[in-house]
Amino acid sequence: MSKPLNIGMIGYGFMGRAHSNAYAKVSHFFDLKYHPVLKAVCARDAEKAKAFAAQWGYESVETDWKNLLKRDDIDAVDICTPNNLHREIAIAAAKAGKMVLCEKPLSMDAKEGEKMVDAVEKAGVPNMVWYNYRRVPAVMFAKNLVAAGKLGRIFHYRAKFLQDWTISADLPQGGQGLWRLDAAAAGSGVTGDLLAHCIDTALWINGSIKDVSAMTETFVKERKHNLTGKMEKVGIDDACAFLARFKNGSLATFESTRYARGHKALYTLEINGEHASIAWDLHDLHRLQWFDHRDEGPLRGWRSIHVTDGDHPYMGHWWVPGLAIGYEHSFVHQVADFLEGLAKKKPAGPTFRDALETQYVCDAVLKSAKTGKWTAVGK
Amino acid sequence: MSKPLNIGMIGYGFMGRAHSNAYAKVSHFFDLKYHPVLKAVCARDAEKAKAFAAQWGYESVETDWKNLLKRDDIDAVDICTPNNLHREIAIAAAKAGKMVLCEKPLSMDAKEGEKMVDAVEKAGVPNMVWYNYRRVPAVMFAKNLVAAGKLGRIFHYRAKFLQDWTISADLPQGGQGLWRLDAAAAGSGVTGDLLAHCIDTALWINGSIKDVSAMTETFVKERKHNLTGKMEKVGIDDACAFLARFKNGSLATFESTRYARGHKALYTLEINGEHASIAWDLHDLHRLQWFDHRDEGPLRGWRSIHVTDGDHPYMGHWWVPGLAIGYEHSFVHQVADFLEGLAKKKPAGPTFRDALETQYVCDAVLKSAKTGKWTAVGK
Amino acid sequence: MSKPLNIGMIGYGFMGRAHSNAYAKVSHFFDLKYHPVLKAVCARDAEKAKAFAAQWGYESVETDWKNLLKRDDIDAVDICTPNNLHREIAIAAAKAGKMVLCEKPLSMDAKEGEKMVDAVEKAGVPNMVWYNYRRVPAVMFAKNLVAAGKLGRIFHYRAKFLQDWTISADLPQGGQGLWRLDAAAAGSGVTGDLLAHCIDTALWINGSIKDVSAMTETFVKERKHNLTGKMEKVGIDDACAFLARFKNGSLATFESTRYARGHKALYTLEINGEHASIAWDLHDLHRLQWFDHRDEGPLRGWRSIHVTDGDHPYMGHWWVPGLAIGYEHSFVHQVADFLEGLAKKKPAGPTFRDALETQYVCDAVLKSAKTGKWTAVGK
Amino acid sequence: MSKPLNIGMIGYGFMGRAHSNAYAKVSHFFDLKYHPVLKAVCARDAEKAKAFAAQWGYESVETDWKNLLKRDDIDAVDICTPNNLHREIAIAAAKAGKMVLCEKPLSMDAKEGEKMVDAVEKAGVPNMVWYNYRRVPAVMFAKNLVAAGKLGRIFHYRAKFLQDWTISADLPQGGQGLWRLDAAAAGSGVTGDLLAHCIDTALWINGSIKDVSAMTETFVKERKHNLTGKMEKVGIDDACAFLARFKNGSLATFESTRYARGHKALYTLEINGEHASIAWDLHDLHRLQWFDHRDEGPLRGWRSIHVTDGDHPYMGHWWVPGLAIGYEHSFVHQVADFLEGLAKKKPAGPTFRDALETQYVCDAVLKSAKTGKWTAVGK
Repeated sequence: MSKPLNIGMIGYGFMGRAHSNAYAKVSHFFDLKYHPVLKAVCARDAEKAKAFAAQWGYESVETDWKNLLKRDDIDAVDICTPNNLHREIAIAAAKAGKMVLCEKPLSMDAKEGEKMVDAVEKAGVPNMVWYNYRRVPAVMFAKNLVAAGKLGRIFHYRAKFLQDWTISADLPQGGQGLWRLDAAAAGSGVTGDLLAHCIDTALWINGSIKDVSAMTETFVKERKHNLTGKMEKVGIDDACAFLARFKNGSLATFESTRYARGHKALYTLEINGEHASIAWDLHDLHRLQWFDHRDEGPLRGWRSIHVTDGDHPYMGHWWVPGLAIGYEHSFVHQVADFLEGLAKKKPAGPTFRDALETQYVCDAVLKSAKTGKWTAVGK
Repeated sequence: MSKPLNIGMIGYGFMGRAHSNAYAKVSHFFDLKYHPVLKAVCARDAEKAKAFAAQWGYESVETDWKNLLKRDDIDAVDICTPNNLHREIAIAAAKAGKMVLCEKPLSMDAKEGEKMVDAVEKAGVPNMVWYNYRRVPAVMFAKNLVAAGKLGRIFHYRAKFLQDWTISADLPQGGQGLWRLDAAAAGSGVTGDLLAHCIDTALWINGSIKDVSAMTETFVKERKHNLTGKMEKVGIDDACAFLARFKNGSLATFESTRYARGHKALYTLEINGEHASIAWDLHDLHRLQWFDHRDEGPLRGWRSIHVTDGDHPYMGHWWVPGLAIGYEHSFVHQVADFLEGLAKKKPAGPTFRDALETQYVCDAVLKSAKTGKWTAVGK
Repeated sequence: MSKPLNIGMIGYGFMGRAHSNAYAKVSHFFDLKYHPVLKAVCARDAEKAKAFAAQWGYESVETDWKNLLKRDDIDAVDICTPNNLHREIAIAAAKAGKMVLCEKPLSMDAKEGEKMVDAVEKAGVPNMVWYNYRRVPAVMFAKNLVAAGKLGRIFHYRAKFLQDWTISADLPQGGQGLWRLDAAAAGSGVTGDLLAHCIDTALWINGSIKDVSAMTETFVKERKHNLTGKMEKVGIDDACAFLARFKNGSLATFESTRYARGHKALYTLEINGEHASIAWDLHDLHRLQWFDHRDEGPLRGWRSIHVTDGDHPYMGHWWVPGLAIGYEHSFVHQVADFLEGLAKKKPAGPTFRDALETQYVCDAVLKSAKTGKWTAVGK
Repeated sequence: MSKPLNIGMIGYGFMGRAHSNAYAKVSHFFDLKYHPVLKAVCARDAEKAKAFAAQWGYESVETDWKNLLKRDDIDAVDICTPNNLHREIAIAAAKAGKMVLCEKPLSMDAKEGEKMVDAVEKAGVPNMVWYNYRRVPAVMFAKNLVAAGKLGRIFHYRAKFLQDWTISADLPQGGQGLWRLDAAAAGSGVTGDLLAHCIDTALWINGSIKDVSAMTETFVKERKHNLTGKMEKVGIDDACAFLARFKNGSLATFESTRYARGHKALYTLEINGEHASIAWDLHDLHRLQWFDHRDEGPLRGWRSIHVTDGDHPYMGHWWVPGLAIGYEHSFVHQVADFLEGLAKKKPAGPTFRDALETQYVCDAVLKSAKTGKWTAVGK
């Protein structure tokens, strides 16, 4: 019989919905030793918290996350707040002996992240960061192909995350829905928000990055701030690109922007190996592009693999070949893996420690952009 | 406050899962006057029914659908059985005063369908047939564009539904999961299974079909039957193609097969109008192809619209631009529309009567294939 | 050393240019036993003929094709006139002992075509029809793959040729550049102009067609005639679709129209076999889509083969991998094959006899459209 | 009447063929005041030169380029030699009063390039460098759209040139066909060979580059040298990537490699502007991707423009809409523009001076890769 795992969710924004959907759905499609129970949702605004609880079936509501941590009936705390609150909550939750699931990026910077890693490891609580794109079936499939050595030596890694939603200078910063433009809440702009995803996937698939050379830009210098009502300097990076060298000798380019007209959420990655290459993009997330030099010469070509078969990662749990799943399923898979990790006592990644590696790269990127120098990654 | 609508589901196969998921999920994403309650699931095998109920949260189990119909706590009956059981159950359900939601195709043939329409209309019960592809956002968007006159006069309609899963002659027919190959259970092969979807969408978007000229083929003539254990003649059509003339003067080609190597569930449609054209396919269901002759000359081209914006049909209920939903969401939308139709007393299509039109076309297609003659559609 | 082959070209329109370019270019890229010499161009309008000769380097001009046939210094006659002149010129040329290269379709109908075949075969002169799309490298590659048995048993053949240039009712018919809309000059509309290409390729790759069921439509019923200056009934078919059964048991759908908004010259073909499938389209003529079921399961996908490698058909004569050739090169290849056929005394197809098979199919298609009946192909 | 322009070509390799084809063909498709005459080809190997002359119709042969320059019947010298010979020949040709057309890159480095610019400008001879990709119709169209302000402010420029032909460590360097791997003959690897194209297009479309941060890599450190027969250190860059800032404030990433498995000659570019974005790639060179934010909201999408209409750049000279041209035509266009420039006394770009700007960027890139520092572009 499956055991309950009582979830206490903090925050109810976009990610609160994505996680709640995953918790609500996972047991319908996966046979697991644990099943999540939506025990409590916590938010400062009691009315909104209640409405959210009603819609998703949370059993109770808290308005102070400290109270949530005190409750005995909460097994795991899920942190869906703006980035600047991750550290304090995560450390307190670990101290309270709760499992911690934290939205990405782990922290405002690596220094914060180190403390968070210390806390969860000292407390010995299961922990995970929501780098959900690892669990898109096509991305997991790519990871598996590289890990199986199908590409041979890797020469190149390329990743981009392109959006276009902040081009208008009339868009304000700060507050609900727009805290990602506010450096005080977000820490950085596209680097922590978007490149962090690209970096997490890259480290996971292709190993560590040695050093980077980066540039950042803020195209719109001032925006009205929703909390003060005044025009304020924009502190985040609107765009960031960097060169990198991996420890395995491969070269990489990374780029992210919110000023790429025509791209909504175009996370792309490509890996070129000695024998084969892989490409993927989030706008067609159910497809993997695959080129295999070992194919018969004149018949070589990029294959567009429709990753919807029963023998593709995770897909045996869903429908039949040809019928696609979407964005939200990556969270379902992450919950499933987390629960399976609990049962097997083999934690599902990325753990806080894994995610700290991404923070080191982000820090190096931002530092390089500031100094104009190649910057080594790491403590 | 939202009112409960108690669902009694009959069958627990592929479609049972798809519908259950829709019922479980709809209230999380849509604010509606009714919310479905998973009251009972019915299947002959009590163990399997119980397991299904446990997984999806159905409150109770029945093993005889006649008992289900007798229950006062069931508002709506959902028929997810093989096609040959639709008629009897639907008519009994209507007589019992239940709303009826029936998997497609409505019936084994139009004659059966007429009786089913009579039954639900006489009983005055809300009714619907699960032609779910209407509710893929890109397809609904296409419908809206045509309805708004954006294409002008329609010249051509083209639809195909291509699969490749029955090419092996070793695949048996009959029984759980394979009843679609058994003429006794399915009525027909690709015509009722796949072309019925294409026809439903076509009639809905482009109006009535006047007449058809069809051909069918059964490539593998005998298959082992799972129920008898013997090699038996295959009675279904493996492939079917037909020419059609719509009442609005446009010409059409339709084709379906389970022998198109490389295509898993490739439902495609294209509409060519005086001013613009539309194309869509199920393998990339989140995209709509759009060509507009009114664009500035040298800049004309087919636009690949990523149908994930808040102002695209249904998409305001889900995530943010760029983040795709999948196959299962079409069922969620259909439930949402059904519930909204209840509240507004304006039934959501396709009703049984709508779906009967598709049966008339299917009958004409199969008759034309048999006689080798152009055949008029209708009673 | 390469021997001269003196060309006498009749007509100087679009095809006159395409053929002249092929003759002028072939020896730069192919080492052959013969090289074409642009000896004479023939057209009724002496000024235009002279201008064309000057531009392309024809050595002389004729204004009466009968005079051209009398000249001893002409080895081969190339017929680029409207369809209604093919028969008379071709038969006279054969009688005059000239090789005959004739634009497609061979003739106004099969009856004419039979006489033309008789004439060239009686005269024993090399002859060829310009179904140039056979010589697109990707199409030749497709032919070779099927011929090598790579697809196994063929289940389906699908071809379309979609255009949109005659949608406007203001477009006149008849005369220079628009004779294709004039039944008196063209014989038929899209059937002879566009479907003839699809049929030629299909017969060549997939063998004979047994019977067909067709429909045609003329959307614009009257157009101003350029020769009379009056509104006249349009005698051609604007659109034509047909079902077909091949002798090898495969099913086919064919369709052509000039009313498919957004498609300029979209000739597409797809072949589904037991083991593999192929697709190609003229808008991206340098690519072949290939699906091979023998690929490792989870890695199966449609390959987009960039047909530009040295080991692809014809491509060793051109540039380097990745660098595409275009439409005009199909004519260069056809000339090269014709010249090589001469040297090896093994005629390059399609000969007049080959092309007569296409006429039989066209005749059956047009007859079926008129009678509404399935119609057998052949004498 | 059109005047002859007598061409003396030096070299007969891949580029010798591409240019010869352009000279042979241009007058068939363009009506110009000048027409090229293939007067002489020059190569050290007399036999090979003669064979080349015979194939292409050059009237005469030289084995010493100095003799070619002395001939009064040569108007223009076309330099198709390895890069290390450009400088000496170009300067001598200018001194001899010949027009000079030089293959790209202009020179081994900017210092050489400056002298070449001086020479042609002092001599006052028309001059041009063969950055042929400017004349791909889709690329010219992109240039025109940007120049017309259709994109508004430019935020991002992105270009890559990916190949995979040197992955095998068994491939030697040096000599005929492989001099591009030999630093002594080529100057650099992908930087001068491939990135130079990307840079030329970028400067032309998006203006000057301020500074760059680059990295290069040589994956295979030693290769057999064809001239010495020994294993020798590889001096070229196998891969190069750089970040750049344009003077207009836009950010750029550039990358090139010969180790990107699956890409033959994939030159891609993308430009993101305030109102619109453009993307293009050489593997489908007849298409331009266009996104326009001014389109009606829900109908926004990337348009795939088939650049084959009469009102697209250069295309009125070729076939009809839908029928593609290929790689070689970019050279025909460049010759046409050069000849038109002569007639109008308005030189066609890129002139030597234009191409020198590309050398400055290449030098800065190579220097940055060596020093690990951001490097300003220019003298």
